[in-house]
Amino acid sequence: MTSPPPHAALKEEAHAWFEGLRDSLCAAFEAIEDEQAGQAAARFVRTPWQRPTEDASPGGGGVMSVMKGAVFEKVGVNVSTVFGTFSPEFRGQIPGAAEDPRFWASGISVVAHMCNPRVPAAHFNTRMLVTSRGWFGGGGDLTPLRLDAPEAVADAADFHAAFRSACERHDPGYYPRFKEWCDRYFFLPHRDEPRGAGGIFFDQLDSGDAAADLAFVEDAGRAFLDAFPRIVRRRMAETWTPEEREALLVKRGRYVEFNLLYDRGTLFGLKTGGNTDAILMSLPPEVRWP
Amino acid sequence: MTSPPPHAALKEEAHAWFEGLRDSLCAAFEAIEDEQAGQAAARFVRTPWQRPTEDASPGGGGVMSVMKGAVFEKVGVNVSTVFGTFSPEFRGQIPGAAEDPRFWASGISVVAHMCNPRVPAAHFNTRMLVTSRGWFGGGGDLTPLRLDAPEAVADAADFHAAFRSACERHDPGYYPRFKEWCDRYFFLPHRDEPRGAGGIFFDQLDSGDAAADLAFVEDAGRAFLDAFPRIVRRRMAETWTPEEREALLVKRGRYVEFNLLYDRGTLFGLKTGGNTDAILMSLPPEVRWP
Repeated sequence: MTSPPPHAALKEEAHAWFEGLRDSLCAAFEAIEDEQAGQAAARFVRTPWQRPTEDASPGGGGVMSVMKGAVFEKVGVNVSTVFGTFSPEFRGQIPGAAEDPRFWASGISVVAHMCNPRVPAAHFNTRMLVTSRGWFGGGGDLTPLRLDAPEAVADAADFHAAFRSACERHDPGYYPRFKEWCDRYFFLPHRDEPRGAGGIFFDQLDSGDAAADLAFVEDAGRAFLDAFPRIVRRRMAETWTPEEREALLVKRGRYVEFNLLYDRGTLFGLKTGGNTDAILMSLPPEVRWP
Repeated sequence: MTSPPPHAALKEEAHAWFEGLRDSLCAAFEAIEDEQAGQAAARFVRTPWQRPTEDASPGGGGVMSVMKGAVFEKVGVNVSTVFGTFSPEFRGQIPGAAEDPRFWASGISVVAHMCNPRVPAAHFNTRMLVTSRGWFGGGGDLTPLRLDAPEAVADAADFHAAFRSACERHDPGYYPRFKEWCDRYFFLPHRDEPRGAGGIFFDQLDSGDAAADLAFVEDAGRAFLDAFPRIVRRRMAETWTPEEREALLVKRGRYVEFNLLYDRGTLFGLKTGGNTDAILMSLPPEVRWP
């Protein structure tokens, strides 16, 4: 047995942060639906789930929150807190799990697919992992239909600026590193194209000050909560053509290809018996491969 | 240098068989479109492609044939004949490539997604590989919307009987082995469900008589050419509800999940710089993850 990392003392705080951020995001997205729809606006539906374990011991679980609206065609916000023991095949792959296979993980994951092709899709997630070590991971990225449209360039600049500001409050090296990591990560080699306009991506973040790292992750969440609803409001009233909608459905195919072929969280989750519905909540509601 | 396997002498014959089968299948599917549409029926559009090589040496290529019709919502028939030298990272994974990295491969791949939810989707492929060894691989499977519907059970029985008959002309052990292999291969562990109603699947088939193995592969192709058009004709005039169509689009999501998460041919092709459009021709034209 090794002594627990300082992250172990932050479990309650991290878990509460992720749930609070979920509530703020859901409220912000529902407020946007209210503005668009007036009456009978869409609302999030929450579905709790439990992580099954082989011996029926407690393994944690989560709550999926999904809304299908007039602005948000499908938006999922998943919060989960799971714990247990890594199976032997995964112990070598997870930092600190070889020394002690027990783990605890809590996080939030958000994916928004929009009705209007002029409004970019967005993804955000952050998590805290505790084994015999502790660290944070996460990121956020924006996926406009056309990367080079002036509106998309402006939206991306807004999105990037929010994350830059969050990063710079903590470490001047974070933003350039995490932005480049995002561009490298969200790339489809078989298409030779990026998934979208980027954002930030980081993993195994452990500066040595766990409380400061959690504060950074909180600021990243606040940046997303600030920037994405603003971008949605800026674009949601724009009219679009059937051709743009068709192009959006094809572009979403690339999103599916990325998530199922390359996304480490998706593949790891599905292979380790994670909650399939919660993991694949990220897939777009309607897609075409013409 | 090792002496070439007997398959090397069959390259022309195998290549010609795959192209001839492509022509027969395209003609059979176009004839079905004629029966449904009367005038202005859909036709296959053929698109040739060449395999790029690092030093611009010849690497072969193929022809994609795609038809979007009133019965076949999207059907692709791809024939390719490619050759070259495996990169060092793949030499250990391919039988016979460690001894001599040169390879030659020819094959046909067919995927049909149907407009009518009462008509099952189908897949078929066969190929001959030549390294310092030689072998055949392939298979075919049927994907109805509802596995347990009496019509789906009858169609699957017809499909299975055709492959059984083809197998039994060659080796009494083939059918039970290849049917079981198919059930094991076309399975989605994260959904704990089969992709469809099965069929046959085989790989690295080398009985010691390459000409006999090619004759088996040809009979497997004839079985598909016989059974699938018959199944399509049996179901294509049935009426369906919007709910069935919606269920079909959701079922197709499972097809995408299988192909991008598990299908070895898809993953190997995309990782080895294969033709992305030809490989992902298998993806359904319209899909939902509600």
